Amino acid sequence: MSGTNSERELIAEGPAIVLVEPQLGENIGMVARAMANFGLAELRLVNPRDGWPSEKARAAASKADHVIDATKVYDTLEEAVSDLNFVYATTARERYGFKPVRSPVTAAATLQTKFKAGEKTGILFGRERWGLTNEEVALADEIVTFPVNPAFASLNIAQAVLLMSYEWMKSSLEDLEETAFESVQQRPSTKEQVFGLFEHLEEALDARGYFHPPAKKPKMIDNLRAVLSRRGFSEQEISVFRGVINSLDRFARKRPKPEPVKMTDAPVDQQSGDETGNGKSQD
Amino acid sequence: MSGTNSERELIAEGPAIVLVEPQLGENIGMVARAMANFGLAELRLVNPRDGWPSEKARAAASKADHVIDATKVYDTLEEAVSDLNFVYATTARERYGFKPVRSPVTAAATLQTKFKAGEKTGILFGRERWGLTNEEVALADEIVTFPVNPAFASLNIAQAVLLMSYEWMKSSLEDLEETAFESVQQRPSTKEQVFGLFEHLEEALDARGYFHPPAKKPKMIDNLRAVLSRRGFSEQEISVFRGVINSLDRFARKRPKPEPVKMTDAPVDQQSGDETGNGKSQD
Repeated sequence: MSGTNSERELIAEGPAIVLVEPQLGENIGMVARAMANFGLAELRLVNPRDGWPSEKARAAASKADHVIDATKVYDTLEEAVSDLNFVYATTARERYGFKPVRSPVTAAATLQTKFKAGEKTGILFGRERWGLTNEEVALADEIVTFPVNPAFASLNIAQAVLLMSYEWMKSSLEDLEETAFESVQQRPSTKEQVFGLFEHLEEALDARGYFHPPAKKPKMIDNLRAVLSRRGFSEQEISVFRGVINSLDRFARKRPKPEPVKMTDAPVDQQSGDETGNGKSQD
Repeated sequence: MSGTNSERELIAEGPAIVLVEPQLGENIGMVARAMANFGLAELRLVNPRDGWPSEKARAAASKADHVIDATKVYDTLEEAVSDLNFVYATTARERYGFKPVRSPVTAAATLQTKFKAGEKTGILFGRERWGLTNEEVALADEIVTFPVNPAFASLNIAQAVLLMSYEWMKSSLEDLEETAFESVQQRPSTKEQVFGLFEHLEEALDARGYFHPPAKKPKMIDNLRAVLSRRGFSEQEISVFRGVINSLDRFARKRPKPEPVKMTDAPVDQQSGDETGNGKSQD
């Protein structure tokens, strides 16, 4: 999905991502990209198997060059975390021990609190094949684990980083329902506008003998009004509807009956004026 | 990260994932893997560029064969969603229109509610390079967008599927703080156990002249007790501490002074019995 706006300020703060003995440059690059997507920028590598810098990593980072360029390499995990105040270890396997085990949501909230208090934090991710050793987990303060399908729990390292980075970004939002953009602002319709739609449509239909037989007219109008009021149309939507009715009501077809646009394989229901046709929409 | 338990029941239910004109088999495979990680199983492809089946997809799926084997291919998006009741379109770009725009958390909650009510749902994901067309978005009920870094918003298709699958899994959990495993259950210590630790340690230290000069002893004991009680140690942890004290107190070193294990590049603070050394830990 595209949508990058290069004029927006680059967010780059928060916990360091520490990869312990990563094997593939591609994975390191995808980690960098995932970090950049969610505003993280500090990548630390402990003893990467294929060395550093890595052209494969840069290619896989899809222009997250600011993360790749700032990546630091360490010989040991102890050195990589020495300046940090609080460290999470990620793991999918149950570990025997006293360390608290947190969900990503709880871990991100903790990291956010510590960040605001000025602490330096980090999140450890293990090797592609077998994760972190118990000795490495022991160097962390707490454990974070993902709510995965127990029968298919193996998360790629870049995916694990993506989820933590995403939760980090979410933990910085005031409102979890906040989105980067919103639908066009619409004013709710007033009842007067709704009734105007009813009358407009009913008059146009009546002029064509839609309400047949006449004895059923009150029931048919009830059904039609129920369909039209069910969704709480906005002012703008009612305006769209009335334009449609105007167009159907006032103008003759320009060409003889074109083929209807095919939307499904199911037979197209022909709109008809009988009560059954109206009644269907209400069940 | 490993941790798959093949004896656990495979979770496979929830919304269909619909990829519109995906280009690379590798991406389709990574999508299948992400779905399997979070318990989704129904993958639909609209007009995949390189055809189907795809060996590249199977390889990238890392054994999510149940998803790959059940994948269905359609010629058009209309056909791919024809049996569904409610559909989300994912997009990173702002779209002009009346459609509601939701965060992944809200979208997942909506999908979960509809799933429990027996509705069939789906989530649309666009092409790698340019996403969904406006006409494709128009076929969905609502839009979902991710809280990404505005300056680096380009999410890989497998990452976008991963995030929605993850939120789907989370929406099925009763408790957001739930984790797949927990730390060893520990009983909180009683005050009697805490005081026992104080006395044990203080006696062992006193026997070695740690509390020097004697006039400072009360203040030094205050500091020491504050350090020991600050973290709310459990019964088991106090037991570990007392074992450590016993060992240091009762046994002589077996060899002449080995090198300390190097943990950082910073000079190692020597533990000493002066008040300053104790006082530091309290600030």
